[in-house]
This record gives sequence, structure tokens and C-alpha cells, in this order.
Amino acid sequence: MCTIGNISGQRLLERADALARHSELADGLTRVALSREYRGAVDLVLEWMREAGMTARLDAIGNVVGRYEASTPGAPCLLLGSHLDTVRNAGKYDGMLGVLAGIECARALKAAGKRLPFALEVVGFCDEEGVRFGATLLGSRAVAGTFDPAVLQAKDGAGVTFAQALRDFGLDPARVGEAARQRAEVLAYAELHIEQGPVLEAEGLAVGVVTAINGFTRMAVTIAGTAGHAGTVPMNLRQDALAAAAECALAVERIGSAEPALVATVGRIEALPGAINVVPGEARFAVDARAPDDAQRLRAVQAIRTEFAAICARRKVAVHIEELQQQSVAACAPWLIDQMAAALRAEGLRDFRLPSGAGHDGQAIQAIAGIGMLFIRCAKGISHNPAEAITAADAEAGARVLLRFIEAFEPKP
Amino acid sequence: MCTIGNISGQRLLERADALARHSELADGLTRVALSREYRGAVDLVLEWMREAGMTARLDAIGNVVGRYEASTPGAPCLLLGSHLDTVRNAGKYDGMLGVLAGIECARALKAAGKRLPFALEVVGFCDEEGVRFGATLLGSRAVAGTFDPAVLQAKDGAGVTFAQALRDFGLDPARVGEAARQRAEVLAYAELHIEQGPVLEAEGLAVGVVTAINGFTRMAVTIAGTAGHAGTVPMNLRQDALAAAAECALAVERIGSAEPALVATVGRIEALPGAINVVPGEARFAVDARAPDDAQRLRAVQAIRTEFAAICARRKVAVHIEELQQQSVAACAPWLIDQMAAALRAEGLRDFRLPSGAGHDGQAIQAIAGIGMLFIRCAKGISHNPAEAITAADAEAGARVLLRFIEAFEPKP
Repeated sequence: MCTIGNISGQRLLERADALARHSELADGLTRVALSREYRGAVDLVLEWMREAGMTARLDAIGNVVGRYEASTPGAPCLLLGSHLDTVRNAGKYDGMLGVLAGIECARALKAAGKRLPFALEVVGFCDEEGVRFGATLLGSRAVAGTFDPAVLQAKDGAGVTFAQALRDFGLDPARVGEAARQRAEVLAYAELHIEQGPVLEAEGLAVGVVTAINGFTRMAVTIAGTAGHAGTVPMNLRQDALAAAAECALAVERIGSAEPALVATVGRIEALPGAINVVPGEARFAVDARAPDDAQRLRAVQAIRTEFAAICARRKVAVHIEELQQQSVAACAPWLIDQMAAALRAEGLRDFRLPSGAGHDGQAIQAIAGIGMLFIRCAKGISHNPAEAITAADAEAGARVLLRFIEAFEPKP
Repeated sequence: MCTIGNISGQRLLERADALARHSELADGLTRVALSREYRGAVDLVLEWMREAGMTARLDAIGNVVGRYEASTPGAPCLLLGSHLDTVRNAGKYDGMLGVLAGIECARALKAAGKRLPFALEVVGFCDEEGVRFGATLLGSRAVAGTFDPAVLQAKDGAGVTFAQALRDFGLDPARVGEAARQRAEVLAYAELHIEQGPVLEAEGLAVGVVTAINGFTRMAVTIAGTAGHAGTVPMNLRQDALAAAAECALAVERIGSAEPALVATVGRIEALPGAINVVPGEARFAVDARAPDDAQRLRAVQAIRTEFAAICARRKVAVHIEELQQQSVAACAPWLIDQMAAALRAEGLRDFRLPSGAGHDGQAIQAIAGIGMLFIRCAKGISHNPAEAITAADAEAGARVLLRFIEAFEPKP
């Protein structure tokens, strides 16, 4: 019997709707790690996993883990997954779709009575977004064995520590380490996720293969000029900090646009003192630069710094750049990219590859296994928002590609 | 005896210091209209006026008015003046220097035993800045007969109406109209003031003649683009509202710089939602454009509007421009400019003319008389700030030019 024919995009959307009902909000979706609502979602996922022929359990940090056994019991697994927690006022697919697609693949294998030479495991990570305790990737770091025990003392908005939240959920904080998996157990990690960007939509494609989870650099910039009366200081005697900042913002846009895959953004700005009739003496703004290649990003950041220095020197204003945060690229494994691209072609789809601008659980899992990702088109690239939307057809296409990838999967040579 | 030799810049600075001690603040200057501190300043000014041989009184709105009689008693007057109120945390010279210089000229005439064919009157206006009741030019509008009685009901921060403040000061709000002067009584109005800008300093000049009090247009601009994830939306698919606003801000600067005397400023800006990792979906900023010629200003405003429309059309974002406020130019009378320039030359100074970017009492007085102004160099163009500074030499030069102007004054032909 054909496995692929068992995949249903309609069921994926219905199940995402069912999960979304487990929310703090009556008319919107907010579900943070280890909450009562998270328990409700976990129970549904455990039920669906078992129905799909998997053994299913909560691990030591509260991740849901299902296993569809290999033809040889106890064999290493191909690990699928994504997260079950959400941001505040979230969409229904960011995270959840990857868990549901993994279960859908197991379900299709079971329906066809098919076993693979490796086990298929699906994980629903308990906390990727980091909303409740301010630290991201908690579930996947625990699985990768890189969980930082200091996070056990982090508190949520109500003053509850992560350790206490684990206890309240029926777990033992002293045993979080037991969630860790060994390298030998995991052949690879594959995650299906909505794109959270507009590229696939613009290309007219349902599915794409992710090349890398981009690295980023974040900077806070302060420009100091001279404040003055907007009526009395002639243009040629001004040291207008905001005019300099505006020129810098355009330089960020220009540099970010100069190479494919690179992005650079000024997301916030203010002028001080900030009165309609005062020439700004100070301007503050932030820069976020990302690229699928660290060297490319660092070159862009250097170009931005050089350009800022030149603009501010010409305008006789001072510039101070503070680097706030930096994260290196998490490259997807070339051999997994190739196998995912082959699955796309096998489905008759275009082999299209794109980087991920947003962060994902694979950033943690790459510590123990090669990672690969599939992106599904989402409406207007919107995510982290109730307007997040996908079609049943695209969800089905994505899960079919995932299943083709699974069935043809060859461990790293 | 020579009148000019009686002018003392040192005395002008000492008297400004003495006035500055009448302040709400122990360690800074704040003195609003009709306050206890204003009473203290008024008493000093009345005393100095009488010492200078003037009759001195409070008028119906609380302006201090001194009169140095003409050789023919009851003759029309040349009106000098400026204001005695301050902004919060003000400098010591903005306003006060003009009142003190007027008194200094009367004092010099008295010391030389000289009468003129016209009376010399000096007014210390009670409220030019508008800090207490939110409406500017109250004292000078009353003198011009253009005081708006609705302002009597305006309240200060403590809920006290202007009418009540007048009563508390010993005045009768019903009689404010009596402060108005007739056209026939006033030959001209002349005001000496610190420049509040850096032009004279940049030119190396102590004194300049004002050509006009600039008109202004103020606009609030909103640009609507599309918010997006700073990591996932490629540069070529963005509708970044802040990048558009940055380009608009540079257009404002470019248009403001294209013609001498024109100025245009973006004094405040914000990006929404304003997060480091979100492409701004909206940007808001303000534009202030001023010129000594209304047609020039309106052309610049039109150029700004046209440029905004072109930038936003190209970037596929929407722009909305709201005009907040508009004020026409108050041109100084050419015949007074000529006489003031002649006085400058008579003092051996360069005939230098410049517009006033800030507002002044003359804007009100022009309803009943031609107006002329002299500007005195101030350090770095700073005003409305404790760092406001002038030298005794410059104050003396200004008062000497004013006295030369007074002694040579010829009523409008």
C-alpha cells in the first residue's frame, strides 16, 4: 500500500486548530511551557502519537517524545520535531505544524504497515520561544545535553522558577539531564516549519529546503551631535544627530541589499530631545544583521561600521556602536539538504533552497546530530501573529515531502 | 556730553544677574508671568526705570512700562521692549537684555541731559514665552490691541485662570483692553534680543540687524509600510516604513539646505512596533520648516510634499501628512532696517543682516507699528538653557548701536 496517499493536509490543519484551543486566551493563542494549557496540548499529542502506532512519553524536561519502532527494535532513530509552546498572541502553526507533520508521517507508515531500518522519533519540544523564563530552546537543549542548569532558577512573571514549574508539572528538576540523547542514538534531525517569511509565496512554491539557520549581529548605535533651535540654527552650521542617523539607516538598507540572503534592519530609532522645534542633539537606533554565512555577515557588519564612521565624520558628529548580541550560523547538513531536495523533486516540486532568518530547535540539536529543515509557505510571511496562515494543500505537500525524505533516508555515509 | 559713553555692558550683565535671582528655582532660572518671582523682577525694573529718569508703571495686563519724556511732553513715542518672563530652566538674557538695553539708553540720555523730539518708552512684556497659560505673546498682544479675551479662561498647571492670576497680581481682568496703544502714539517698535542662533558668532560679529521674523510650517508625517520579521523578510520584499522615513528626513535636510535663510528640521521620529528584530511597519516623524519669506517657505513645503510622495510611491508605502501649524512672516520694516544698519555703521561695525528663526514680541506689535530688531551674538547659539551666554562687550556694543539708532531715529517718511 502507498504510504504517501495516507497524508492529509486537512487533518494537519484540524489538529493545529485543536491544539490552538489549549490557550490562556479565550480569543487568541498563548501557550507557554509547562502551563495548564501546555498540559492540554501534550495530552492531545500523546494520544495522536499512540494512535499513529508510536510509543509515547514525556521526557525529563516535559518534551513529548513518540517513537515509531524500526524493523530492528532498538535501532538508532531519525529524529523529527518542533515545539509546542507559543509566543503571546501567536499563530497556530509556528512549531506545532512540525510536530503534527512528524506524527502524520508515522501514521502513514503505520497505515501502510511499513517499518523502516531506523526508528522514527517525533519530539514536541516544551519551550523553544523562551516566553515564560526568558531563555530560548530549553527543550531542545535538554535533548542535546546542553541545557544550562542555571536556567532552573530563572523565574516567570509570577515569580515561579523553572525548577518549581517542572515539579508542578510532575517532573523532577534534578533529573533534567536524563532528557539528553546520545549521538549514537540519533542519525539526523529533521524539522518541518512554516517559513515565517514571504520568499516561498513570492516564488509561488509550497515547500523549500532550508540551507542554514542564519547567524545574527545586533548593535545599539548612538550618534551625538549638537542640539539647537530648529528656527535659528542655519543648515550649514548644524550637527543634526538624526539626519546622520537617517543616512546610517539608509546605509544599513543598502548594505543589507547588496548581496543575496543577507538582511539588515533598523527596527527602532529615537531623536533627543525629541521636540518638533529642536534640532536633534542625539539619535539612538538599533541594527540587526543576519546572513546564512558568518563571514558574509561579519563583512556586512564591518561595512556598516565603516560607513557609519564615514557618514559621522563627514557630518562632524560622534558615533558609538555597542554590539549587543552575536549568534553564529547553524548550517544544515549538506547531505540532509541533498536528501530533502531529492524528496522535493520526487514529489514533482521545484528544488528550491533558502536560508532561515528566524531561530529554530535545530540550533540546539546540531550539537548531537546533523540537522535539516523543510519550510512551508505561509501567507504574506506573517508569523508570531493571529494572522499566521497556511493552506491545507501546502501542509499536505510539506508532509508528503517529509515522508518521501523519511522513506528514502540514508544515514550519513 | 556724549551719550554713548554712558552705556555700560558690565551694568547690563549685572542687572541680568539681579533679575535672574527672581526665580522659582534655587539653582536655575524659571520665572513665569504674574508669579511672585515676576513681581520681584517687575519691582527691580520699575526702580531702574525711575533711576533712568522715566515715569514707570504697570499696565493693565502686567507689562512694565517706562517713559522718558520727549522734548515736547506728550509726543508720540519710539517703543523699545522685550519680555521679562522665561521658559523653564532658562537663560538670563533671552528677553531681559532687550528691556535692560532700553533702560540703559534712557539712562544714558538722562546722564547727558538730552531730550529727543519723541518720547522713548520701554516695555517689559509680562508673557511672551507662553509657559504658564499655553498661549504666547500675551503682553505684546494686549499692547497691540489684539489680545484674545478667551485666554482669560486659560488655566495654568495649578488650575489658576489667567483672569485669576491678574486679580492675584492686583489687576482687573475686565480692564485688560486698557493696555492697548494707539497707532498714533507709537512711531515704531525696536527690540534688542540675543540671536539664539550661531550666525553672528560664525561671522565674528557682535551685532546684526534682523530682516524678518521667519514664518513656519509644522507637519506630522505618518508612513505606513508592512511590519515583518527582521530575519525572514528579504530586503527586496520589504516595505520598511522607517527606511522610507529616513529617506524623507534626508530630503527635508536637502530641501532646507538648497536656499539661503531657509531651514527645515526633523526633530522627532519613531518606528513601530519599534523592536530590534522587527522591520518597522509604521514610522512617524515631524517636520518644521521656516523662512524669512512666505513664498519661499511654501515652495519648500511643496517640494517636501512632492519628494515624500515620490519616495513613498517608489517604496510602495503610504504617506499621510498632517499640517499642524502655520505662521506667516513678520517682516521688519525696511525703513527701520535701514536706520538700524546706519547705526551699526556709525559704531564702526559691519552692516550684517539676518532673519530671526525664533518668534518675538514684534510679531504682535506689528499690528500697530513698524518693527525693527537688533540681534546680539550669544555663545554657540544656545538659548532656552542655563548655558545661554553673552559677553559684556557684546551687550555694550548692542546697546550702543541701539542708542545710535534712537538718537538718529526719523519717523517713517
